[in-house]
Amino acid sequence: MRTGGVLNILGKLLLLLSLFLLTPIPFSLYFQDGMVKMFLLCSVLGAIMGGSLLALFAPEEDLGYRDGFAVVVLSWLGLALLGALPYVLCGSIPSFVDAFFESMSGFTTTGSTILSQVEVLPESVLFWRAITHWLGGMGIIVLSLAILPLLGVGGMQLFQAEMPGPTKDRLAPRIQDTARILWVVYLAFTLIQILLLMLGGMTFFDAVCHAFATLATGGFSTHTASAGYWQSSYIEYVLILFMLLAGVNFSLHYRAFTQRSLKPYLENEEFRFYMIIIGLATGAIIVANMAHGVYSALGDDLRDTLFQVVSMISTTGFGTADFDQWPSVTKVILVSLMFVGGCAGSTGGGLKVVRVLLFFKYARLQLRSLIHPRSVGAIKLGRQKVPKEVMIAILGFFALYVGFFLAASLLVTSMGVDIVTGMTSVIATLNNIGPGLAGVGPSRNFGDLPQAAKVVLSFCMLAGRLELYTVAVLLTPDFWKMARRPVWRWELKREVKA
Amino acid sequence: MRTGGVLNILGKLLLLLSLFLLTPIPFSLYFQDGMVKMFLLCSVLGAIMGGSLLALFAPEEDLGYRDGFAVVVLSWLGLALLGALPYVLCGSIPSFVDAFFESMSGFTTTGSTILSQVEVLPESVLFWRAITHWLGGMGIIVLSLAILPLLGVGGMQLFQAEMPGPTKDRLAPRIQDTARILWVVYLAFTLIQILLLMLGGMTFFDAVCHAFATLATGGFSTHTASAGYWQSSYIEYVLILFMLLAGVNFSLHYRAFTQRSLKPYLENEEFRFYMIIIGLATGAIIVANMAHGVYSALGDDLRDTLFQVVSMISTTGFGTADFDQWPSVTKVILVSLMFVGGCAGSTGGGLKVVRVLLFFKYARLQLRSLIHPRSVGAIKLGRQKVPKEVMIAILGFFALYVGFFLAASLLVTSMGVDIVTGMTSVIATLNNIGPGLAGVGPSRNFGDLPQAAKVVLSFCMLAGRLELYTVAVLLTPDFWKMARRPVWRWELKREVKA
Repeated sequence: MRTGGVLNILGKLLLLLSLFLLTPIPFSLYFQDGMVKMFLLCSVLGAIMGGSLLALFAPEEDLGYRDGFAVVVLSWLGLALLGALPYVLCGSIPSFVDAFFESMSGFTTTGSTILSQVEVLPESVLFWRAITHWLGGMGIIVLSLAILPLLGVGGMQLFQAEMPGPTKDRLAPRIQDTARILWVVYLAFTLIQILLLMLGGMTFFDAVCHAFATLATGGFSTHTASAGYWQSSYIEYVLILFMLLAGVNFSLHYRAFTQRSLKPYLENEEFRFYMIIIGLATGAIIVANMAHGVYSALGDDLRDTLFQVVSMISTTGFGTADFDQWPSVTKVILVSLMFVGGCAGSTGGGLKVVRVLLFFKYARLQLRSLIHPRSVGAIKLGRQKVPKEVMIAILGFFALYVGFFLAASLLVTSMGVDIVTGMTSVIATLNNIGPGLAGVGPSRNFGDLPQAAKVVLSFCMLAGRLELYTVAVLLTPDFWKMARRPVWRWELKREVKA
Repeated sequence: MRTGGVLNILGKLLLLLSLFLLTPIPFSLYFQDGMVKMFLLCSVLGAIMGGSLLALFAPEEDLGYRDGFAVVVLSWLGLALLGALPYVLCGSIPSFVDAFFESMSGFTTTGSTILSQVEVLPESVLFWRAITHWLGGMGIIVLSLAILPLLGVGGMQLFQAEMPGPTKDRLAPRIQDTARILWVVYLAFTLIQILLLMLGGMTFFDAVCHAFATLATGGFSTHTASAGYWQSSYIEYVLILFMLLAGVNFSLHYRAFTQRSLKPYLENEEFRFYMIIIGLATGAIIVANMAHGVYSALGDDLRDTLFQVVSMISTTGFGTADFDQWPSVTKVILVSLMFVGGCAGSTGGGLKVVRVLLFFKYARLQLRSLIHPRSVGAIKLGRQKVPKEVMIAILGFFALYVGFFLAASLLVTSMGVDIVTGMTSVIATLNNIGPGLAGVGPSRNFGDLPQAAKVVLSFCMLAGRLELYTVAVLLTPDFWKMARRPVWRWELKREVKA
C-alpha cells in the first residue's frame, strides 16, 4: 500500500467536505438559527485537516487496485469524523460518540438516529444531516459501479461491463468518467424530486432535505414523525416512487435517459426480480394486515404497506406507520426485505437483489443436478452466463456476511441489550436501513443503547456500506504487511535536489 | 423412480417397526399401566400396513441412486405416522396432529414436545417415545454415512472415503455393510451409558430411556424437569459426555474402537473445530453469566453452561437450566450453536460442523485472493483437498437452508405466533434440537401453537433431518416426471405365466 498517496487523497476529500460545510450557512441565515459561525469554524477545521494532509504527502500517480481498499475505508471514516463536528459544536448532541454515530449514519446513508426529537437540531444542522446522506449516496454509486467491480469484491465484477463510459486501464480516470455520467442522473433525479415535493406543499427546505435523503436511500427526516408528518398521500406516493428509483442500478437509469426508453429496465433481470419481490411482499402484508384488522380502508393499507415495503427493500428507512405494531408475519417479511436490499449499483444497502437472485438460482441448479446427475447446468443472468469465479465470490460474500452479523450481534447483546433490539439493530445498521424492531423500532431510536454498542453499530454501518470485503481486507494482517512507510513531501524535495 | 420397489422397502420397514412396537410391552407389564393390548393392536395394525405393501409390490433389484431420495423421505414419513398411533390410542394425546408432531420429533431425534407434563404418559408409552429416538438415530447414522454421500447431497460426498467397510458398487449391500459396523458402536455406547446412569442412581427404566435419547441426540426425557430432575452432578456429567460423543462422526468412533487409540479423533479437523467451538462458547457464557450474577458458584455455572452448550451444539435439547432467563448475549451464543449442530456422520442435526468450518475457510480464502490477486489457493480439510464440486454443494446447501428457514418462519408467524417464538420454533425443529426461546423456551412446549403450525414444524423436522436436499428434490416436478407407474405383484405373475 502506498500510504502517502492514500493520505493525499484523503486530504483532498476532507478539503472538498470543508467546502460543503459552508452550504448550510444560507439556511442558517434564513432561519436565523445562529449557526453561521459554527459552520465557518467547522469548515476551517476541515480545511486545516485536509490541507495538512496535502502538505505532508505528495500525490502518487501509480496507485494500484489494492490501495483502493484503504482509500475507500479511510475516506468514509475521515468524512464521518469531520462530519460529526457540527452536531457536537451546535450543542444539541454533546456526546462525541453519539455525534459520530449520527454522522456515520448520514454518510453511509443508513438513517439510524440517536435523537428522540429531531426538531431539537437547528434547521441548518438538519440540512447538514441531509447533505451527508446525499454526498454518501454519490460516493456509493461510484463505489459500487466503478471501484468495487475493479477490486473484484463480492461478485461486483459482474458489473464491470455495465459501467457507462469509455474503458481505460488506469484507475483514476476510469472512475472519474463513470462518476461524471452517473452524477448527472443523480442530480437530475434530485431536482425533479424537490420540485414534485414542493408541488405537494412541502417547503423548499423540507423538500431539499427529503430529496437528499430519498435519492441516497438514507432516511433522515426533518421531523420526528418522518414522512408521516405531512399526512399527504401525494407526498407519500412521490417518496415511494423515488425510493423505488433510488434502489435501482443507476447505470440502468443512465441508459434509459440516453435511449429515451423503458427497455433497459424491462430487459434487466435484477430489476424485474426487484419489482416481483416488492409486489409479492406488498400483497402478502396487505392480506395479513386485513386479516388482523389493522386497517379499515384498503387504500390506506395499500399506501402504508407499499411505503414500508419500498422503504425497507431500498433500505431508506422512512416511516409512515409503526410496523412494530403490525402482526408478526409482516415483521418477518419486512426483516427479510431488509436483508435483500436494493439493486447493485443503486444507493441501497443490504445483500443486493442480484446476489439473492443468483443465490436462489444456484440452489435450483443444485437440485436439478441431483435429479439429473449428468446434466451440466450454467447460471445465467439475463443473456449473460455468470462465470464460476463470480458465483464463488458471491457465495463467499454470504459467508462473510454471516460472520459479521454474528460477531456484531454477540458484541451488542453482550452489552446487555435485549435479543430482538440487539439483533435488529445490527440488521438495520449492517444493511444501512435505519430503524429495526423493539427498542430500535420505527417509533424509537438508538439513543438509549450503551455507548459501546453505538461504536459497534457505527462500524456495522461502515462495513455494510463498503460491501464487507473492503473493510475485512483492512482487518487482515496480510494487508498491512504490504503497507509502505509513507513518503513525506520534504523527502521528495530532497530527492529532487539530490 | 421405481415406485413399486420403493413401496416394497417401505413395507419392510413398517413390518420391522411393528416388531419394535412390541418392545414396550414388558415395561407395561412391569409398571402395570394397562397398555399391553394397546401396543398389541398397534403392532398388528403396523403389520397389516407393512404386509399389504409387501403383498402388493414386489421388490426390485435395480433400485438406483435416485430412488434413494424417495425411500428415505417415505420411510421417515411412514414410520412417523405408524409411530404416532400409541400416543393417540393410549388416550393421552387425543389430537392426531399433536401425536404426529411428537412421533416425528422422536424419529427425527428432535425432542420438541407438545406435552406440558410428560408424566401424564403411561411408562410404556414413555419408553416408546424414547425408542423412536433411538431408532431414528440408527437411521441417521446410516443415512449420513452411507446413503447421502452416494446421493451427493450438500457436500456429503466428502465422506464417501471415510465410510468403514468394503466398497461395493450396488447400493443395498454397501449400505448394509456400513450399517452393521456402525450399529455395533451405537449399541456399545448405549449399553455403557445405561450402566453409567444406573450407577448414578437412575432406575433401569429411566437409564434406558435417557441413553436412547442421548445417543440419538434426541432430548425426550421421562420427566418434565428433563435432566434437571435428578439434581445430580454425576448424572449431568455422564449426559454431557455422551451428548458430546453422540455429536461426533460415528466413523471416528469406529476407528478409535478398532485402533484402540484416540488418534482418529485428534487427527480429525472437524472434531478439533467442534471441541474448540464448545470450549469458546462455554467460556464466553460463563463470563457473561458471572458478570450478570446468574450463578454464585463457579462449579454450578461451569456444569450448567457446559451442559447447555453441549446439549445445543449436539442438538440434543436436554435441559438443566432455563436459559431463557440468562442474559441475552448467552442466548445469541446458544442460538448460534443450534445452527452449527453436530459433526457430519453423527446423530446431531443442524448445518454440521464441517460445513461451517469450510464456510469460514472459504471466506478467508476469498479475502486472501483479494489481497494477493494472483495467488491460487485451495481449501483443505485435514490433509485432504476439498474438490470444487463439494465446496459448491456446501454453499448451495446454505442457500437452500435460508430458503427453508424463511419460508417456514413466514408460515408459522402468519398463523399469529409472535416473532421470537415463531422463528426459534423453526430453528429448533429445522436443526432437530428441541426447545427454542420465549413461547417454546426450555420451560415451555409446542402444545399451545396452532395446529397448522405444528404441521409446518413437523415438516421442518423432516426436512432438517434429511439434509434438506432429500426433501427438496421430492418437491420438484422434475422428480415426479421420472416416476414410473408402480408394478403390482399380480402383473408380475401374469408376465411370468405368459
